Amino acid sequence: MNYFSGHMSELIEQLATLPGIGSKTAQRLAFHIVSLPEEKVEKLSKTLVETRKNVRYCAECFTLTDSERCPICSDAKRDHSTIMVVETTRDLAAYERTGKYDGVYHVLHGAISPMLGIGPDDIRLKELMQRLNGDVQEVIIATNSTLEGETTAMYISRLIRPTGIRVTRIANGVPVGGDLENIDEVTLLRALEGRTTL
Amino acid sequence: MNYFSGHMSELIEQLATLPGIGSKTAQRLAFHIVSLPEEKVEKLSKTLVETRKNVRYCAECFTLTDSERCPICSDAKRDHSTIMVVETTRDLAAYERTGKYDGVYHVLHGAISPMLGIGPDDIRLKELMQRLNGDVQEVIIATNSTLEGETTAMYISRLIRPTGIRVTRIANGVPVGGDLENIDEVTLLRALEGRTTL
Repeated sequence: MNYFSGHMSELIEQLATLPGIGSKTAQRLAFHIVSLPEEKVEKLSKTLVETRKNVRYCAECFTLTDSERCPICSDAKRDHSTIMVVETTRDLAAYERTGKYDGVYHVLHGAISPMLGIGPDDIRLKELMQRLNGDVQEVIIATNSTLEGETTAMYISRLIRPTGIRVTRIANGVPVGGDLENIDEVTLLRALEGRTTL
Repeated sequence: MNYFSGHMSELIEQLATLPGIGSKTAQRLAFHIVSLPEEKVEKLSKTLVETRKNVRYCAECFTLTDSERCPICSDAKRDHSTIMVVETTRDLAAYERTGKYDGVYHVLHGAISPMLGIGPDDIRLKELMQRLNGDVQEVIIATNSTLEGETTAMYISRLIRPTGIRVTRIANGVPVGGDLENIDEVTLLRALEGRTTL
């Protein structure tokens, strides 16, 4: 790639290491970047380093945050006796967008996956158990509905059951707006099992 | 998006301004970036600014380069009497990859497009005309085979013809490996018109 300048090649190479960015996209991004005003590039460059330096895990729920404890954990108005367990900060954001959940969270940063060699010690499970003091009344397991997510949910529920704390799992079912004929059998059966009285 | 930290939101916002990066991709990139080793992020950040600062246009052919003149223009072994006119540095790179062209280039940085309001003065056309001194014997127009590229080719050829310099256009035809039945009629007719004796 020495048809471009050395700097360009270096930039393209580094951009191409990011997830989902192939060499063509990296090229397009690099050409866009050299066409931007210098101060805009400096701002982006600074934001990258500042974000990496300042973002850390909340000491309580392990979501990504700028301070010792995240805004949700430091909010006295939230119900600290209900903990929703999610795989990633993005899942937390998804539930926060609903605006209807007023408990707190616990971010595992992954899910148990024997296939990928990820065991219970590789995710923030120990830290979850340490939070289960006398005040916690319910743990809602909201891991993904994948093989790994289900395995993790099962594992956590077995771990917590002896403590007597209520453990629940978010429902499987037909997505709102979903067409029954396009939905797989397993989901349809789960929706039937989980039916509620009207 | 204040479910994430302020720094994260800021980074996501800035990444999402890049071409082809939507808010979901920006999120994924931002989460990847905070998971990288600090020195890797610092390196990327530095490369961004350095590239933007040091990359400039070659004084002769206007490709992107690190020095006053690009490696191709400063190469005495290249044939400086043949100039290939391309729309972008990426097109130059495409021809360089063939390894068979030994002339020099001229990068227009765009094409004439009345639709988008891009006229002859908005691309590096004046600079091309200034290069057409006594030594230049052929100008090969290798703009894209699009409406804009063809318009530009036509415009340039009319501009150069009075100087007596030979003006050529790269051939239209069936791509190598191309299946005739999948190729549009215009290309098929161009391939017929451009047939060569075996």
